[in-house]
Amino acid sequence: MKTIYIKDVPELEGQEVMLYGWVHIKRDHKKVVFIDLRDRSGIVQVVGDEKMAILNSEDVVAIKGIVKKRSENFINPKIKTGTVEIAATDFEVLTKAKTLPFDFGKDKLDLTLPVLLDNRGLTLRHPSISPIFKVQEVVIDSFRNALKNKDFIEFQAPVIISQAAEGGAEVFEIKYFDHKAYLAQSPQFYKQIMVAVFERVFTVNKTLRAEPSVTTRHLTEATTLDAEFGFIDSWLEVMNMAEYTIRFMLEEVYKNCADIVADYGVERIILPEKIPYLKLREAQEIIFKRTGRDNRHEPDLDPEDEREICEWAKEEKASDLVFITHYPVEKRPFYTYEDPDDLGYTLSFDLLGKGIEWMTGGQRMHQYDLLIDNAKKRGINLDNSELYLQAFRYGMPPEGGFSFGSERIVMKILNLANIREASLFPRDMERVDIHLGNANHEQKDKKS
Amino acid sequence: MKTIYIKDVPELEGQEVMLYGWVHIKRDHKKVVFIDLRDRSGIVQVVGDEKMAILNSEDVVAIKGIVKKRSENFINPKIKTGTVEIAATDFEVLTKAKTLPFDFGKDKLDLTLPVLLDNRGLTLRHPSISPIFKVQEVVIDSFRNALKNKDFIEFQAPVIISQAAEGGAEVFEIKYFDHKAYLAQSPQFYKQIMVAVFERVFTVNKTLRAEPSVTTRHLTEATTLDAEFGFIDSWLEVMNMAEYTIRFMLEEVYKNCADIVADYGVERIILPEKIPYLKLREAQEIIFKRTGRDNRHEPDLDPEDEREICEWAKEEKASDLVFITHYPVEKRPFYTYEDPDDLGYTLSFDLLGKGIEWMTGGQRMHQYDLLIDNAKKRGINLDNSELYLQAFRYGMPPEGGFSFGSERIVMKILNLANIREASLFPRDMERVDIHLGNANHEQKDKKS
Repeated sequence: MKTIYIKDVPELEGQEVMLYGWVHIKRDHKKVVFIDLRDRSGIVQVVGDEKMAILNSEDVVAIKGIVKKRSENFINPKIKTGTVEIAATDFEVLTKAKTLPFDFGKDKLDLTLPVLLDNRGLTLRHPSISPIFKVQEVVIDSFRNALKNKDFIEFQAPVIISQAAEGGAEVFEIKYFDHKAYLAQSPQFYKQIMVAVFERVFTVNKTLRAEPSVTTRHLTEATTLDAEFGFIDSWLEVMNMAEYTIRFMLEEVYKNCADIVADYGVERIILPEKIPYLKLREAQEIIFKRTGRDNRHEPDLDPEDEREICEWAKEEKASDLVFITHYPVEKRPFYTYEDPDDLGYTLSFDLLGKGIEWMTGGQRMHQYDLLIDNAKKRGINLDNSELYLQAFRYGMPPEGGFSFGSERIVMKILNLANIREASLFPRDMERVDIHLGNANHEQKDKKS
Repeated sequence: MKTIYIKDVPELEGQEVMLYGWVHIKRDHKKVVFIDLRDRSGIVQVVGDEKMAILNSEDVVAIKGIVKKRSENFINPKIKTGTVEIAATDFEVLTKAKTLPFDFGKDKLDLTLPVLLDNRGLTLRHPSISPIFKVQEVVIDSFRNALKNKDFIEFQAPVIISQAAEGGAEVFEIKYFDHKAYLAQSPQFYKQIMVAVFERVFTVNKTLRAEPSVTTRHLTEATTLDAEFGFIDSWLEVMNMAEYTIRFMLEEVYKNCADIVADYGVERIILPEKIPYLKLREAQEIIFKRTGRDNRHEPDLDPEDEREICEWAKEEKASDLVFITHYPVEKRPFYTYEDPDDLGYTLSFDLLGKGIEWMTGGQRMHQYDLLIDNAKKRGINLDNSELYLQAFRYGMPPEGGFSFGSERIVMKILNLANIREASLFPRDMERVDIHLGNANHEQKDKKS
């Protein structure tokens, strides 16, 4: 069993070690062969004799050798183990790799996005790609820990649902035995049900949306981070909890992934003591004043507005994040609470950061009769949502919650150009691992 | 905002407190009204005047009152706060509940399973039901922590897949834009891909199976706990990691949910220092000797066999769990490693406990050519599984892994009669929240 990771090798100077990993690069100087050996933790140079010439890129190997200090002149500052190298005394090929489709030994993979994704089974292991998903792990885990610190309980929301209740658009349909069923676009109804069970809940879930367009910031399958809690006195408690949560998450990323963020050469997300918040109408007024673009009667911000208001927040409030609140009633789901002091507008918020939406949230209607009336008014069919209705019929406390997209946060922390880079196996209307143009539409029905 | 949970009230004797929760039971004695107030943490008795007579079951209330010690005679040993009661000084109804469909104030809900599930939006909050899902949270979280302790990294596996690669049976089909796609029955291929990225990985996932029968131990949607790791010297390392993991999980449950397990009045799962393991053929021989039932030439254990071998392990090895290994090649997926020392049988194992399967695992073929040959031999179509093939084509270390069903573990820890009780929102061929006989098959296409 493997016991040593490559990153720890510099501490083992003078010792004999057994290393396991992949041949990242081979440099064959005839009598002397150099290998860059890679594992998940890093890369180290191995020096061996001509027998090592049989090794090729991505061969899986076990290498025995002595950890030797490099002389000053030969220190390699580009790798973290650059002060040492391994003088190989023996090696074994565990698995031979086939010839690679492109040069894999570069610091950055110089591939187009389609080629990067067409070869995801290989490209994910490149040292310029895999760290993205260590960041994703920390983002998700720190979301959990932030909320556990506040007495939230994690629950499992379902993927298969019986009704596309928030409107039929962009919902995937399943053949469910002799029935139709759908894939959940969000765990919204379930997290609300769970408020009446555990008061404070969160869930990490796959959410599925039949996004009919290919953009740089939409996926058909995303990992979303949802929280919901009851016994609130005001919608501001919901926004404050959201702020606490994102702040905690960013701190954890910068603490646990400092190396990765440094390697990516990206600036950190800056937060002031309090994230600024303003009503949609105030934001539109600011955008009008700054740019002359008059969207003051639009019910939402368009992508250009989102970028502009983020720039405003950065310049005027020294904040990379900004809350926009009070979206008009018609732009928010039927269960969103209307502000009694600002009729026509909701107790809702979006968190924008670096030009795009990171999170959405708000206070929900907790009174059964109000909820039912509103669903009717909006033409929402709740016939198959009986469990959701029960939760409200039999006593729901005042409550609210919020939802983050994990991929968007990772994308913005690492300043990736396309959200697909922040998803291990990104799905869109043209791709489910493979490009769907190439897919077998009519799969043969074979049994294993 | 709510700051005090009911379970903490006994420590606040003599103080004025603000409590928030649900009216669990009201006992109206005219001049004096007693309320059992419930929140997620417990129940406490509240004593008030006739004004409180307006309260009904499941009303959401805020109650202000003084925590008073009960005299010896009035201590209620049935509730954890039974040494105190709240002398109400004020109260407010936050949300009125409608009349309940059945008596909700009993210690145990006396309902049939269909009624329990038809009313899941209410029944989940009953104090005899909600603790099941605290246990589920600990089961899942302790799985994560067990593996993090061993340097595993969590990743997100997709739900939508382009091919039902392990055989077309029992796979849900999705309308994916102009294509067909499928729901993942397991994250198997993805966790194997991720071994070549992070070496040691785990994932918590929804797995979807079109189970065509209604049994007490199958769901169409389950939360499964998957682990996979590379650079193993032997399949025994995989089985040992699985043993370590389940042992860690059980210890965490018994540490963190001791009260719940005690309240359910169930015996703890007993493990000896080493969980016994035996080959399928050895198990069949034992069953034959014990019962005279001769299934020695069957390729698998049937449910009766599973119960019998669990009883044997309990009686002979003082263990509630037992590993069965070396299933025949034809009973395991095409990627399972054949034992070179026992041809025709695989380096695979199932973990059985209290009569049913808890986990399955084994060593996988890591050599590309072997894997491809075997897929062909078995008639497995990997045309759309290009990423999986890449992971092996370009160097996969020797590896293996295992998979648990979280609901089955919870079911067995709490000795529940039906796996549906261990799922918040159980799905089977007849139910997706509501009974499908009642569903709107043709949903109206409305927009919100």
